[in-house]
Amino acid sequence: MTELRVIPVRGLPEIREGDDVAELIASAAVLDDGDVVVVAHKAVSKAEGRVVRLAEIDASDLAARIAAGDGRDPRQIETVLRESARIVRMRPPLVIAETRHGFVCASAGVDASNAPEAGSLVLLPLDPDASAERLRAGLRERTGREIGVIVSDSFGRAWRQGTTDVAIGAAGVRVLLDLDGRRDPVGYELHATTIAVADEIAGAAELVMGKLEGVPAAIVRGLEVAGTGAARDLVMPAERDLFR
Amino acid sequence: MTELRVIPVRGLPEIREGDDVAELIASAAVLDDGDVVVVAHKAVSKAEGRVVRLAEIDASDLAARIAAGDGRDPRQIETVLRESARIVRMRPPLVIAETRHGFVCASAGVDASNAPEAGSLVLLPLDPDASAERLRAGLRERTGREIGVIVSDSFGRAWRQGTTDVAIGAAGVRVLLDLDGRRDPVGYELHATTIAVADEIAGAAELVMGKLEGVPAAIVRGLEVAGTGAARDLVMPAERDLFR
Repeated sequence: MTELRVIPVRGLPEIREGDDVAELIASAAVLDDGDVVVVAHKAVSKAEGRVVRLAEIDASDLAARIAAGDGRDPRQIETVLRESARIVRMRPPLVIAETRHGFVCASAGVDASNAPEAGSLVLLPLDPDASAERLRAGLRERTGREIGVIVSDSFGRAWRQGTTDVAIGAAGVRVLLDLDGRRDPVGYELHATTIAVADEIAGAAELVMGKLEGVPAAIVRGLEVAGTGAARDLVMPAERDLFR
Repeated sequence: MTELRVIPVRGLPEIREGDDVAELIASAAVLDDGDVVVVAHKAVSKAEGRVVRLAEIDASDLAARIAAGDGRDPRQIETVLRESARIVRMRPPLVIAETRHGFVCASAGVDASNAPEAGSLVLLPLDPDASAERLRAGLRERTGREIGVIVSDSFGRAWRQGTTDVAIGAAGVRVLLDLDGRRDPVGYELHATTIAVADEIAGAAELVMGKLEGVPAAIVRGLEVAGTGAARDLVMPAERDLFR
């Protein structure tokens, strides 16, 4: 590899329900074989209609109690609870939850920022790996290129400040690079050295996408990570998880 | 920003104790103002002599018990315990520890891969932010350029498979980008949205550095992240940490 390039995809419109995101990206960018296209999940979720309006939500008593004291809208907390498979930690109004996909993240991925309108919330895609696969098929159809796709979201981390973007959906990308059994230059066998390259790619894309610029996609060019893989493989299996 | 480039620094020799890493990088790469140079901590640790030889270690009984059954060298576990300020989780022989710096990571950052010789272990730098600052000063002196420096390591994460590289030392880089109070395009105030850009930069660099290629440094070009900041700011304060 000579170098890696991370190129923002500019000129995309605000995404609305029913939009063909692959078509919009193919029109806005020139793609090469081997590119990885990273798309912020909010663009995908909005296109897929994974948006709820607060006005349509009835908050439970539990949601009201969690929201109390912070001025948070109980209907927002209610939506978080509905998107949660399990609560991992709670310090009201902060809820760290495991989603149905197995992701552990703040608010079960429910987000009020960059929602299509005030008073609405964006949820995670129902099946982000399937979303990535559809985008990949759509991009291949429109460009003739073999492209990897990552759907990203900003997750907080245990023990560390700030969020980094990670892969919540992937298609056509080797998400984990396993060095197990390969040897470094002095011959030490690398035990259990597996690199979450899809998460590093998502984080690199975030650096050019930003939160406020209206750039919901970026191209990562110059990697050799084509392969099969799904972001669900990035979820630590419960039996190996020391922190679940 | 037009695009981000991540450029591996090739041609560096195997780093040895006493080496001037800034001099080696300045000789191997052409740097620009605003570049962020990411250096794998192992190169820094080796140059600083943060290496121990197993032959010099006497393993405690505790270390022997933790190592038992896995064929792990008790002296390696002993070194992990000595580098730990606190054990966070233990599933022998796996030890997740908090280091004196406050980092929570496997084996307290002690690593046997890429050590200078078989039978030796590489430790984390004593003060990685100070290491980064020295590298920054050295690079400025030799190149006349204003450069940011990140010292990186590969950390596992709770709940997710695989490691991503993160910043354990930083100088001349805004490590956290705080969007608190800024507004997204539809006017929703972003609450507590802080992006750990230094970790995303470290991860992007890992994508070109790899583990096996003998490339311990990379240049990240095209960001506007110059500023003051230290990797210690990335450690979640204990009173806010739900997972400590």
